[in-house]
Amino acid sequence: MTLARVLSAIDDDLDAALGRLCDLLAIPSISTDPAHADDCARAADWLVADLAALGFEARACPTPGHPMVVAHGGSGDGPHVLFYGHYDVQPVDPLELWNRPPFEPALEDTPKGRVIRARGASDDKGQLMTFIEACRAWTAVNGSLPGRITIFLEGEEESGSPSLVPFLKDNTETLKADIALICDTGLFADRVPGIVTQLRGLVGEQVTIHGPDKDLHSGMFGGIAMNPARVLARLLAGLHDDTGRVTLPCFYDGVPPLPDDLRAQWDGLNFDATAFLHEVGLSVPAGEHGKTPLEMIWSQPTCEINGMWSGYTGAGFKTVLPAQAHAKVSFRLVGQQDPLAIRDAFRAYVRGNLPADCTAEFHDHGASPASQMATDHPAFERARGALSDEWPAEAAFVGSGGSIPVAGYFKSILDMDSMLIGFAKDDDALHSPNEKYDVESFHKGMRSWARILAALNPS
Amino acid sequence: MTLARVLSAIDDDLDAALGRLCDLLAIPSISTDPAHADDCARAADWLVADLAALGFEARACPTPGHPMVVAHGGSGDGPHVLFYGHYDVQPVDPLELWNRPPFEPALEDTPKGRVIRARGASDDKGQLMTFIEACRAWTAVNGSLPGRITIFLEGEEESGSPSLVPFLKDNTETLKADIALICDTGLFADRVPGIVTQLRGLVGEQVTIHGPDKDLHSGMFGGIAMNPARVLARLLAGLHDDTGRVTLPCFYDGVPPLPDDLRAQWDGLNFDATAFLHEVGLSVPAGEHGKTPLEMIWSQPTCEINGMWSGYTGAGFKTVLPAQAHAKVSFRLVGQQDPLAIRDAFRAYVRGNLPADCTAEFHDHGASPASQMATDHPAFERARGALSDEWPAEAAFVGSGGSIPVAGYFKSILDMDSMLIGFAKDDDALHSPNEKYDVESFHKGMRSWARILAALNPS
Repeated sequence: MTLARVLSAIDDDLDAALGRLCDLLAIPSISTDPAHADDCARAADWLVADLAALGFEARACPTPGHPMVVAHGGSGDGPHVLFYGHYDVQPVDPLELWNRPPFEPALEDTPKGRVIRARGASDDKGQLMTFIEACRAWTAVNGSLPGRITIFLEGEEESGSPSLVPFLKDNTETLKADIALICDTGLFADRVPGIVTQLRGLVGEQVTIHGPDKDLHSGMFGGIAMNPARVLARLLAGLHDDTGRVTLPCFYDGVPPLPDDLRAQWDGLNFDATAFLHEVGLSVPAGEHGKTPLEMIWSQPTCEINGMWSGYTGAGFKTVLPAQAHAKVSFRLVGQQDPLAIRDAFRAYVRGNLPADCTAEFHDHGASPASQMATDHPAFERARGALSDEWPAEAAFVGSGGSIPVAGYFKSILDMDSMLIGFAKDDDALHSPNEKYDVESFHKGMRSWARILAALNPS
Repeated sequence: MTLARVLSAIDDDLDAALGRLCDLLAIPSISTDPAHADDCARAADWLVADLAALGFEARACPTPGHPMVVAHGGSGDGPHVLFYGHYDVQPVDPLELWNRPPFEPALEDTPKGRVIRARGASDDKGQLMTFIEACRAWTAVNGSLPGRITIFLEGEEESGSPSLVPFLKDNTETLKADIALICDTGLFADRVPGIVTQLRGLVGEQVTIHGPDKDLHSGMFGGIAMNPARVLARLLAGLHDDTGRVTLPCFYDGVPPLPDDLRAQWDGLNFDATAFLHEVGLSVPAGEHGKTPLEMIWSQPTCEINGMWSGYTGAGFKTVLPAQAHAKVSFRLVGQQDPLAIRDAFRAYVRGNLPADCTAEFHDHGASPASQMATDHPAFERARGALSDEWPAEAAFVGSGGSIPVAGYFKSILDMDSMLIGFAKDDDALHSPNEKYDVESFHKGMRSWARILAALNPS
C-alpha cells in the first residue's frame, strides 16, 4: 500500500508544499522582458537546488536565452517518463488591475474556495510543482523515486521558446524517454480531469506600418498625408469576413473536418458555453458562424489581434498624424495547417494591400504546428484510470485551444508521445491580472501525479 | 523715422531676445499632462513678470485649468489690438526620437540656417515672443507702446482650451478690442508671409470599446470570445470609403464648394505639394480623390486617427485577448459643418455597429467650428502691406488646415475679427520630435510686428 502512504504524506505536507511554491512564485521570471533575465536564472537555480535535494542529478543548462533545467533520477522497469513544465511567466501589465503585487504570492479565501494568488500560480509554476511535490512525497515514503524520471523545465515558454528546438536537437540522448508528461493544461471542467490529446499550433507576428518619416501635425498635414494608423486599421479589419472566417488565401488548407466520433464524444461533454463565457463577462460565442463552441476553441483555427498601438496614447489629446502603426497578431492552427505558409500569406496580404508611401516591417514571434496524440499508447489508459480514481468524475480525452509547441517538438525531434495533464481552471486568469491557482488543484494535482506514477510503475 | 530706429533696436538686441526665449522654453509647460500643472503656472508667472517689466499692467488669472495671462498697456487713437498666443506646449513623446532634451533649448546651425531647438520653439512660445520683443524694442526707443495693446496668453491651447470660452464670457469688457492679432500660424512658404483668413474647426473624440471583463488567454478563449481590438479596427476602417471620403451620414453638410475666385487665387500660389510632402518622407497626396492638394489641407474636412492602443504593446509577445481597445479620433471641419452634429454622428456610427457583448465609452476632447475672416476690415490691408515691406515676397491672404478655435470665439463672444499672422515653417516639426524655430522667423517676426504696429498707428 505504498500509494496510500504517499497520498497521506502529500496531505500531511500540504502547508510546507504551499510555502515552497510561494518561494518560487516570488521570483519575477518574466521571460519576454530582457530586464528580468536575472530573475529567470534565479528561478532555474531555485529549481535545480530543490530537485538536487530530492536526489535528482540536476543542472541548469545555459542557452542563448534563459536556461533549461534538466534533472535525472530513479530507476525501474516501468516506462521512462520525461516531465515538462516551464518556470517563466507572462508580463503583469496592466499592473493597476491587480488587487495585490503579482510577485508577492498569498493564500486567499474566496467564495469558491482557497486560492494561491500570484503571477505564475497556475501558468505554470503551481502546475510544475504538483509533479515535483509528488516525487518528494514518494521519495520521503520509499527512499526512492517511482521509476525512471527525467524532469525538463523551460524558461522561454511565454516568449516563443526560441532556444527549445536547438536544445532538443543538441540533447536528444539526454532527453529521450518513453513518454512525456506535460503539465501546462487545465481540468476539463470544475473537478473533471482531462488528458489533452490535441493542441492548436501558433504563429506570432508583429507588423509595423511606416508612413511619414516623423509624426505630423494633423492641422498642417491632415487630409493630404498618409496616416499609417488608418492603413493598419483597414488591414486588420480585412483579416476576417462577415461570417468570422479568416480571409487569407489558403488559410484553411489542412483544416480537417471534425470526425463524427469525436464530435459525438465532445457533444457528450455537455460543454456549457454560456457559463464559460459568463465567467469573463460575455454572453454569446463570437467565432465563425455555424460552428459549435467547442469547435471554435478546439478544432477551428483563429486569427487574433493581441496588441496594437499607434500615435498618441497618453492623457488628453494630441492632434498628431503618427509616423508608424504597430500590431501583434497571432494565429491558432489546427490539423495540418502549415505555420510558415500562413506567416507568408499574412505578410503577402499586408504587403499586397499597402497604399503608396507606406512600407511594412515584420517581426517573427514563433511558429508551431498543431499536434494530435496517439492515444493507443497504453500509458494513456493507465493515466486516465489513475485520474479517475483521484477525482469525483471520470477523466476524458479532450482537445485544447491552447498551443503547447513542445508536444509537437517531442514528437518530431524525440519521437515521443505526450500526455498533457493539468489542473488549471478556466477562471485562473492565466495571462491576466490577479492570476490564481486553486489550492484544490495544487493538492489533488500532487495526488494525481502520485497515482499516475504508481499506475505507470506497477510493483 | 521711429520705425527705422525700432527695427535697428530689434537687430541689436537679437542675442538677448534669444536668451529670453530660451529661458521660457526651458519651462516644460505641457498642458495636457496633469503632472506639469506647476510648470504651466511657472510659465504664466514668467510672462507676467516680463510684461510688467515692459510697463504692461499684467496678471495671471486663475481658471479651473491653467492660468490665463492678461496684460494691458499703451494708448493712442489707433485701433485697440488684442494679441493672442499660448504658452503651453505639446507632449514630447516619443522622447527617444529627440536629438537633445526637449526642454534644454539650444541654437543649432543647420544646412538650412540657424534654428532654436526645443519643444514649443515654434508652437507657440517663439511666436508669441516675437510680438513681446517688438513691444520691448518699441518701448526702449520711444518710452511707450505703439497704441493700445492688450496681450492675452492662454495655457490650454494644446489640451482643447477647456477654460477659454467661460473665461472670454466672464471677461468680455477686459478683453474686448477693435481687432485681434493671433500669432500661431506659419509663413505661407519659405520667406513668403501670409495672413490666414480661414481656419478649419476641430472635433476631438476618444472612444473605448469594452468586451470581456478582463484580458483573456487567446489559447483558451481565442475563436469564441469577442475581441474588442478587432471590433475597433473594423469601426476605424469603416470611417472612410475607397475614394477617401468620410462615411458618416451628413458629414459633408455645410461644406461649401470652393469659390472660383479663391480657387484661382490658390492656383496662383503655385503650391508645390511634392516638395511639401517630400519634407516628411511622402510623395503623393493621400486625400479624397479628385481634390487638389490645397483643397485637401484648407477647404476639405478630415477624419484622422491620432492614436490607438489595445492589448499587449511591450517587448516580445503576449497571447492575450484584450478586454478593451481605445482610439483618439479627430475631425477637421470647414464651412458651416456643425461640430456637435458630427460628434453625434460619430458616436451613433460606433454604437450602431457594435456586436453583441461590446459597449462603447466616449470622452469629449473639444469641438469648434471653422472660421472665415472679414478681410474688408482696413487692418487687413495695412498688415499685408507691412508684411510685404519686411519680407522679399508679397504677403497673401491664405487658408489654413489648422484649427485655432480662439479665432472663432473672438468673433462669436467678443464680436472681433482676427488677423492670423505667424512665421512658423512647414519643417518646424510642430507636435513632433526635434521641434525647432528658425532664427530668421524669430528675427523677421519681431520686425514684422514692429512694422504692423506702426502701420496700424500712423503718427
